[in-house]
Amino acid sequence: MGKLLVVGSVALDTVKTPFGEVEEVLGGSATYFSTSASYFTQVDLIAVIGEDFPEKHLTFLKSRGIDLSGLERRPGQTFRWKGQYSHQLNEAQTLDTRLNVFETFRPKIPAHYMSPEVLFLGNIDPELQLEVLRQVKRPALVACDTMNFWINGKRDALWKVLKEIDILIINDGEARALAEHPNLVQVAKTILERGPKHLIIKRGEYGVLMFDHRGSFGAPAYPLEQVLDPTGAGDTFAGGFLGYLAATGNRSPEAFRQAVIFGSVMASFTVEAFSLDRLRVLDYKEIEGRFRAFKQLTHFEDLVL
Amino acid sequence: MGKLLVVGSVALDTVKTPFGEVEEVLGGSATYFSTSASYFTQVDLIAVIGEDFPEKHLTFLKSRGIDLSGLERRPGQTFRWKGQYSHQLNEAQTLDTRLNVFETFRPKIPAHYMSPEVLFLGNIDPELQLEVLRQVKRPALVACDTMNFWINGKRDALWKVLKEIDILIINDGEARALAEHPNLVQVAKTILERGPKHLIIKRGEYGVLMFDHRGSFGAPAYPLEQVLDPTGAGDTFAGGFLGYLAATGNRSPEAFRQAVIFGSVMASFTVEAFSLDRLRVLDYKEIEGRFRAFKQLTHFEDLVL
Repeated sequence: MGKLLVVGSVALDTVKTPFGEVEEVLGGSATYFSTSASYFTQVDLIAVIGEDFPEKHLTFLKSRGIDLSGLERRPGQTFRWKGQYSHQLNEAQTLDTRLNVFETFRPKIPAHYMSPEVLFLGNIDPELQLEVLRQVKRPALVACDTMNFWINGKRDALWKVLKEIDILIINDGEARALAEHPNLVQVAKTILERGPKHLIIKRGEYGVLMFDHRGSFGAPAYPLEQVLDPTGAGDTFAGGFLGYLAATGNRSPEAFRQAVIFGSVMASFTVEAFSLDRLRVLDYKEIEGRFRAFKQLTHFEDLVL
Repeated sequence: MGKLLVVGSVALDTVKTPFGEVEEVLGGSATYFSTSASYFTQVDLIAVIGEDFPEKHLTFLKSRGIDLSGLERRPGQTFRWKGQYSHQLNEAQTLDTRLNVFETFRPKIPAHYMSPEVLFLGNIDPELQLEVLRQVKRPALVACDTMNFWINGKRDALWKVLKEIDILIINDGEARALAEHPNLVQVAKTILERGPKHLIIKRGEYGVLMFDHRGSFGAPAYPLEQVLDPTGAGDTFAGGFLGYLAATGNRSPEAFRQAVIFGSVMASFTVEAFSLDRLRVLDYKEIEGRFRAFKQLTHFEDLVL
């Protein structure tokens, strides 16, 4: 079971959806990612919080076995995000972003974090992603996320990051913006030529596409009767995907496909409640059960010659 | 091999996409449906054309073995549709609709059409759909399509149709409008309670979901390098889906899933060219090849206990 290192954000979220609202709840990309991954493997977390960050959240993350040596507490306030969703839950409308201590975040890597099996560079400044990448002993797998803010504002640094990673995990709008093309197959060609061996395109309620030199893999999202809050679904997906790959050590095409399903399974739980509330009460039997439900959802018999 | 009866529109389309434009080309829901289905089974077509409808299109439809006894030629002009698509190819913008002879269309059913194995009620006035349904000998399977115009304008007649059919094939926006709910699982419950045993929700580039009392089946759309014109994709899907079910006579859950894939395969070919141009040159070996490519696209190993 390989160790998984994640660098990203830990935040306090205020979220409103048609089904309710929550204030100052646990959020952040590294939080969703590491909690999701913790169901599969040992996670080391690098992020920053302010003086006001509630102790109970640390207690929760520790209860998931996540190593918080790299979670720096600094003077000032924790990163805050405020957003809302309409009935069309696929896209968040950001109402307020207060970076606070996250604004001057410089990842510091504890000595015992230096040899991860798998590294996830969450959605932070690509220059910081490069810094982290150059400090650690080269992991077996490196994945990264990004967003339009960096695609538009730091494109050159971002391409430098992409040249050195194995897996890019982004949503379809970001993928199109990065490759500057509307067609996802063309987008995949462009991106795979520039470095990553695998491109994973998250499409929210429509599922996931994975492209690599062998071809493509597509999976729908699990049809859920109740989606309360889609916040964190993408990071939860990445946590399940990389957590599984870190746990198995298997790098076969088959393992990558199963990892996509485990990521989709974890995301399908996250959206069933606000914040990380569904992940708090989840057990591994439920994860296996939903994996099998995904198999049921997508399976069909091939043609007999 | 069971006969398949379709009632719908035959039209002349003028279409502009970012990749080109065509004027007064062969189009219409019954045209795409029957051409697609003709790769699997014998199709009887009911529709109306005007005096101006080019002979070459009749020659083409006949070359596909489609029975045109029910294609009535009437004084006046053929139905014309003019639309365009942006780079976001998922939704057409209608620029002009001229119903012409289609406005007063009353389906007339030739005597030798009266015992179809499968019936597809294309997107026409639900009162006309009911008329057709009540005239023919009850088929083994009845499917129908509709659109927001009828959902909003003739809801009661539409629910009457739905009470008597087996399969409703519509897009996600229409499904939400019909059930008046944003969540597709809830939408499926509502619709399946009112009559249809199967609900198929078309999601364009995102694929298809099928719901029935056994559960759900989801398939992504095939990732294509070049999509020239999405016009007719939904009707082509329905043609492949019902054509396969009519051909096999198999009504097992497994056959329904394979039928969804055959429908998706046929739609994936249609969008590769304008009008029906890709279907004109398609052969069954290519259909089988892409069916297997779908299997490759979606397959993953289940968990081993």
